[in-house]
Amino acid sequence: MTFTDEIREEADRMWEAILDHPMVRELGQGTLDEAPFRYWVRQDYVYLIEYSRLFALGASKASTLDHMGTFADLLESTVTVEMDLHRSYAEEFGIGEAELEATTPSPTTRAYTDFLVRTAALGTFGDTVAALLPCMWGFNETGTRLAASGESDDERYATWIDMYSGEEFTELTDWCKGLMNDVATNATESDRERYRELFVTSARYEYRFWDAAWRQEAWEV
Amino acid sequence: MTFTDEIREEADRMWEAILDHPMVRELGQGTLDEAPFRYWVRQDYVYLIEYSRLFALGASKASTLDHMGTFADLLESTVTVEMDLHRSYAEEFGIGEAELEATTPSPTTRAYTDFLVRTAALGTFGDTVAALLPCMWGFNETGTRLAASGESDDERYATWIDMYSGEEFTELTDWCKGLMNDVATNATESDRERYRELFVTSARYEYRFWDAAWRQEAWEV
Amino acid sequence: MTFTDEIREEADRMWEAILDHPMVRELGQGTLDEAPFRYWVRQDYVYLIEYSRLFALGASKASTLDHMGTFADLLESTVTVEMDLHRSYAEEFGIGEAELEATTPSPTTRAYTDFLVRTAALGTFGDTVAALLPCMWGFNETGTRLAASGESDDERYATWIDMYSGEEFTELTDWCKGLMNDVATNATESDRERYRELFVTSARYEYRFWDAAWRQEAWEV
Amino acid sequence: MTFTDEIREEADRMWEAILDHPMVRELGQGTLDEAPFRYWVRQDYVYLIEYSRLFALGASKASTLDHMGTFADLLESTVTVEMDLHRSYAEEFGIGEAELEATTPSPTTRAYTDFLVRTAALGTFGDTVAALLPCMWGFNETGTRLAASGESDDERYATWIDMYSGEEFTELTDWCKGLMNDVATNATESDRERYRELFVTSARYEYRFWDAAWRQEAWEV
Repeated sequence: MTFTDEIREEADRMWEAILDHPMVRELGQGTLDEAPFRYWVRQDYVYLIEYSRLFALGASKASTLDHMGTFADLLESTVTVEMDLHRSYAEEFGIGEAELEATTPSPTTRAYTDFLVRTAALGTFGDTVAALLPCMWGFNETGTRLAASGESDDERYATWIDMYSGEEFTELTDWCKGLMNDVATNATESDRERYRELFVTSARYEYRFWDAAWRQEAWEV
Repeated sequence: MTFTDEIREEADRMWEAILDHPMVRELGQGTLDEAPFRYWVRQDYVYLIEYSRLFALGASKASTLDHMGTFADLLESTVTVEMDLHRSYAEEFGIGEAELEATTPSPTTRAYTDFLVRTAALGTFGDTVAALLPCMWGFNETGTRLAASGESDDERYATWIDMYSGEEFTELTDWCKGLMNDVATNATESDRERYRELFVTSARYEYRFWDAAWRQEAWEV
Repeated sequence: MTFTDEIREEADRMWEAILDHPMVRELGQGTLDEAPFRYWVRQDYVYLIEYSRLFALGASKASTLDHMGTFADLLESTVTVEMDLHRSYAEEFGIGEAELEATTPSPTTRAYTDFLVRTAALGTFGDTVAALLPCMWGFNETGTRLAASGESDDERYATWIDMYSGEEFTELTDWCKGLMNDVATNATESDRERYRELFVTSARYEYRFWDAAWRQEAWEV
Repeated sequence: MTFTDEIREEADRMWEAILDHPMVRELGQGTLDEAPFRYWVRQDYVYLIEYSRLFALGASKASTLDHMGTFADLLESTVTVEMDLHRSYAEEFGIGEAELEATTPSPTTRAYTDFLVRTAALGTFGDTVAALLPCMWGFNETGTRLAASGESDDERYATWIDMYSGEEFTELTDWCKGLMNDVATNATESDRERYRELFVTSARYEYRFWDAAWRQEAWEV
C-alpha cells in the first residue's frame, strides 16, 4: 500500500466535506451566485502568489537536480502561465487586473498560505510536498466528481470544472502523489507521521477556502 | 511623533475591541466560566512554543550583538521561566503537564503562529519586531485596563491581571516599543508601511485569540 | 550617479585582478592547459546548482510579481537550458554526465556558494541581488575584454569567450545591474553599505574561483 | 556501535592533522608567537557571533521542547557568558573591545561560518547538530591532548588548554555527541550519510581555522 493510499481515508473525509458544501454543490449545479465566486477568484489570485513561494522554497531545498527542475517548472508555470490564465478567467467575471492586484488576503487565505510558506521555510523538502499535495488533489477530486455528476450547464462554471477535471491537471496531481510516495518511502515513521499532519492541515484549509468564499469572509476588526 | 505613537490609533481600535469582548469583560469581572479560560490556558501554551521560535529566528537575523543578546534572553526566559510559570498556573485550573503537552493548536492558534513564524523566517529583523509587538502591547494594555477597573475579586483571574499589568511586563512592553521605534527610524517608508501591516495583522489575531477561546473553537472537519 | 557606477571602482579592481590572473590570460591567449579548464568546467557545474538555489530563494522573497517572475525565469533557465548547455560544453572536453554528477565542491566552490545561499536565506531580496551581481558582471567583463583583445584562436576557448561576451549575456548583466540600482534607490544608507560588502565578497570569490581552478585546489585533509 | 563511534575514524584523522599543525604544536609547547594567536583570538570572536546564529536557527527548528530549551541555553550562554569570557581573555593579549568589534572575518572564518549558517538555515535539526559537533569535539580533543602532553609552561596558553580540556567543556562535548547519536538513531541511512558529510566539512574547517591563524590569512584582492 502506497503512502497516498494510506492517507486516502483522511483525504476522502475531506473531499466529501468539500463536495457537501453549498458553495461547491451550487458550483456543480451551475446555480451559484456570482458574488461568492468572484470572491473566490480574487482570493485564489492571492493564493497563487504565495503558492509560487512554496515552489520556490521547495526548489531551494531539493536534494536532486530532478526535483529542483520540476519545482522550477512548477514555479515558472504558476507565475507566468497560470496567473495569466487566472487573469483572463477573472476578466470573464468582470474582475480587472487592478482589482486582482488590490485584493488583500482574507483571514483564511492568510492562514492557509502562512501555513504553507512556514512549512516550506522551516521544514524539509518532504514536508513541503505533503503540504502542497491537498491543493492539487482536492481540486482534481472536486473537478472530477462535479464533471461526473454532469449537472452544470452554466458555461462559466463549466470552464472551471473542465480545467480541474482535465487530463493535464489530473497528470499533475498524479505526479504530485508519486512524488509524495517517493519521499515517504525514504523516510522514517516519525517523518511520515509529520507528513500526515501537514497533509491533514492543508486539506482542512481546502475546505475552509471554499467556506470563506461562501461567507465572503472578512476580518471582524 | 514616534512610530508607535503613529500606529497607536490602529492599536487602540484593536485594544478597544478586545476590552469589549465578552471573554475579556467576564475575565475582568471575575465571572468567566472556567471552560473557555482553560481552553485559553492550553492554547497559550502551544502559542508560547511557537513564540519562542520567533525569538530564535529574530536572534538569527539580528545585525547587532545587542539585539542578538536581547532576543537570546527572551528566547531563554520564554522556554524556561515563562513556560514553567505557565505550567504552575495551568495546574491551578486542574490542567496537568500531560494535558498541556497533548494540546493541538486551534485553527486560530495555528493561523497566528504560522503568520509569526513565516514573517520571522522570510522577513527582516524589523518585520519580526513589528509582528511580535502586539502580543506584548495588547496583553499589557488589557491587563492594565482590567486592573484599573478593579472589578475582579476572583483570585485566580486576579493573578492573570496582576501579571500582565505588573511592572515587569510593562517594562518588557516598553522595551519592545522602543525597539520598534529604533527599527522604524532606520527604515524606508516602504519598510514602515510593511511594519504597519504586520502589526495590524498580529493585533487582529490578538482579538481572534480571545474570541477562539470564548467559542472553544475547533476544526469543523 | 547610479549605485552600480558607485561600486564600479571596487568592481574594476576585481575585474583587473581577474584579467591579470594566469588562468584567464592563458584562456584569452588560447594557451591554457586543458587540466585546469576541465577542473573549472566541473566546478562550474556544481556552482550552477547552488546558483539555482539562490534564484529560488530570491523568488521566495520577492515583493513584486515582476521580480518573482524574473527570478522564476532565471531559475528555470539555469536548471534546464544552462545546465544542458554546460553538459554539452563539458562533453567537448571529454567530461561525461556521470563525471559532472560525481564532482564534489572544491573548498572555494563550497565557500562561495555557501556565502550566496546563506545570504539569500537570511538576508533580504536586495542582499540576494547584491550577492549574485558579481557573477554575471564579472563573466561579462572578462568575456568582453578577452573578446576585444582578440588573441585566442583556440576554438574551444573561443566558444567560452563568445558566450560571455555575447549580446544575450550582456543583456542579462545589464538587467541585473538595473535591478541592483532599483533596489539600492529604495534602500537606506545602511542597506546600501551592506549591499557593497556583499558585492565585494562575491567579487573576491569570482577571483578565487579562477585561482582555485588554476591550482586545481583540493582539501588538504 | 554508536554513530559517533562510526565517524570517530574520520574525526581522528582530522584531530591528528590538527595536533600535527605547527600552530597547535607551538601552542602546546608554549612557544607560539603572539601574532598568530592574537589573530586567532580576533577571528574566534567573529566566529562566536555566527556560531550563536547556528544555535538560534537550531532552536527555531527543534521538534521537542527539550531540544529547544538546550539550544536556547547554548545561544544565551554563548552570546552573554562566553563572549564576555572571550573579551577578558582577549584583553590579556592586549586586544580591546573596539579591536574585537572591528575585526572582519578572514576568508576561512567567512567560509566556515557561512557553511554552518547555510546548513542550519536550509537543513534539518539533525544537519545542524552534525555541523556544529566538530567545533566542540575538536577543541575538546585538542585541549585534552595538549593538557596530557603537559609541555606548556606558558601561563596564557595554559589558560586556553585548561578551558577546552576542563570538565565543563568535556561535558558539553559529551552532551553534543549524545544528541548526535539520538538524532542519527531516528534517521534514515541517507540522512546519516548527509550527517557524515556535514561533519567532515566542519572538521576540515576546524583544521583550516588553525591554519588560517598561522598564516594570518587575508583576502588577496
